Amino acid sequence: MSLLVIGTLAYDSVETHNDKRENILGGSAMYCAVAAALLLKKDQPGPRLVGLVGEDFKSEDVEMMRKAGVDVGGLETAPGKTFRWGGRYEPDWNTRHTTFTELNVIEHFDPKVPDNYKDSDYVFLANAHPAVQKKALEQVNGNPFVLADTMNLWIDVALDDLKVLLKEIDGLILNDEEARMLTGKSNLILAAQEVLKMGPRHVILKKGEHGAFIMGEDVHFSLPAYPVTDVIDPTGAGDCFAGGFMGALARDCDHSPRALRSAMLSGTVAASFCVQGFSVGTLVTRSREHLDSRFEDLSSICTL
Amino acid sequence: MSLLVIGTLAYDSVETHNDKRENILGGSAMYCAVAAALLLKKDQPGPRLVGLVGEDFKSEDVEMMRKAGVDVGGLETAPGKTFRWGGRYEPDWNTRHTTFTELNVIEHFDPKVPDNYKDSDYVFLANAHPAVQKKALEQVNGNPFVLADTMNLWIDVALDDLKVLLKEIDGLILNDEEARMLTGKSNLILAAQEVLKMGPRHVILKKGEHGAFIMGEDVHFSLPAYPVTDVIDPTGAGDCFAGGFMGALARDCDHSPRALRSAMLSGTVAASFCVQGFSVGTLVTRSREHLDSRFEDLSSICTL
Repeated sequence: MSLLVIGTLAYDSVETHNDKRENILGGSAMYCAVAAALLLKKDQPGPRLVGLVGEDFKSEDVEMMRKAGVDVGGLETAPGKTFRWGGRYEPDWNTRHTTFTELNVIEHFDPKVPDNYKDSDYVFLANAHPAVQKKALEQVNGNPFVLADTMNLWIDVALDDLKVLLKEIDGLILNDEEARMLTGKSNLILAAQEVLKMGPRHVILKKGEHGAFIMGEDVHFSLPAYPVTDVIDPTGAGDCFAGGFMGALARDCDHSPRALRSAMLSGTVAASFCVQGFSVGTLVTRSREHLDSRFEDLSSICTL
Repeated sequence: MSLLVIGTLAYDSVETHNDKRENILGGSAMYCAVAAALLLKKDQPGPRLVGLVGEDFKSEDVEMMRKAGVDVGGLETAPGKTFRWGGRYEPDWNTRHTTFTELNVIEHFDPKVPDNYKDSDYVFLANAHPAVQKKALEQVNGNPFVLADTMNLWIDVALDDLKVLLKEIDGLILNDEEARMLTGKSNLILAAQEVLKMGPRHVILKKGEHGAFIMGEDVHFSLPAYPVTDVIDPTGAGDCFAGGFMGALARDCDHSPRALRSAMLSGTVAASFCVQGFSVGTLVTRSREHLDSRFEDLSSICTL
């Protein structure tokens, strides 16, 4: 079954307490699509990526994504430079400072879903203005399973648009801080219940090193993070989680409560590979066997 | 099978953002014993409690513990006042300020294990100076399964004694902050691995609202906290976790890896009842049916 990923591609500059990289491939849709590709079977179509890049976007990066299994047919190039973002992490990894944001071509991002992508069964709306996410979703036909991400900025400046979007999606994925901000509830269980009242049938709440939980129709499942001891760069981990999650659903064409639980493990595993390298450097070297092995490990850690 | 609990009893004064109580029954051994009693079967001997109180200790509190199923035969009364502790919680529950500590009779705590307790199969050494914990343990015969708690103070002022104790116990239970302080590792998986190198065969790492994990010989299991939405007072939750955990092991006389996993759920459930009231107010009103029901809930939340 087909998975559509709509969102940003970027060049990131990342600084950690013991290393740094400049202008490495990033962007939420890129992370998600590459992670999802790892989940899909070889005979299944790759995740369809819709995003906008500038004229400086490197052909080798397009080639890398294609090799990783991503369908890059929905990449659009606009005059100007690719979106750039800079961030610095505190040594405990829990605090991230945005050092700069250059929207560049993304400032006027108006995603076009190619005709041959409009039949997608699973859709991930990566972090973007909720009105943009909605416009993108309206181009998809049928009755896809839709997961959307958001961020503090949109909760702050585009809450009404976000509330409209929330009524049209199957699931919202957000982190603890965003959930508290969106709902005003500090208890995360209450916050998740409050999100569900806003419309989506499911909410996935990410808690970084403390794992994640999904709550919604017929499902409440909580699991720890994969026990990674060599974190290199957490950038993109949340998007890789979404990619692993949606990739697992699309692979099995199943979003039953049981499938949602299992997909939470796949998301966690994808995120764990992500944080072990800069950009998708570690992720793209992983095989299905690596993924399956870590899935089994995690399953044994979180199953009675 | 028999469970021995050695540690403090206290009168606590607790202040939260919307309520307060003065001189309510507390103390780590009290919390642990009452929680463990809930786990044991009606035809099993109650948890044996060894602790020291002052002349002001109320007979109604002794009676309450007895009614809850605790064997209070090891309670010793000394001239002077019972240990007193005061604490205040920030609204997010994650920060606790100690407002005062009056050691009183506890200053010279030198636990005496009664002869008829010396055959105990399971022993919990509640938080105390590690040299005191060791002296208590030396009075127990045979080859009991021993879990010990500790705190920042002892890591700071009695590290050598703690290191000696660590070589003589089966498990250490501590929270994230204590684990980082004891090992110098901020990554909790690395911290747990480091604790294991110090001697105990198992380490239980508590993360408050984020749950807990156990790591050690043939076992690595992580689980979320029970989703409580009406926290009243978190005091004693960690000791109730230990009580639920040890109570489950003693009930089934089993500390196999499978039993340790299951006992982590029992500990989590006991802690969840604890935080829903001041002192052991909610815990003592719970039946085995309440406990079993919450165990099943939690099992469904954390099992694939």
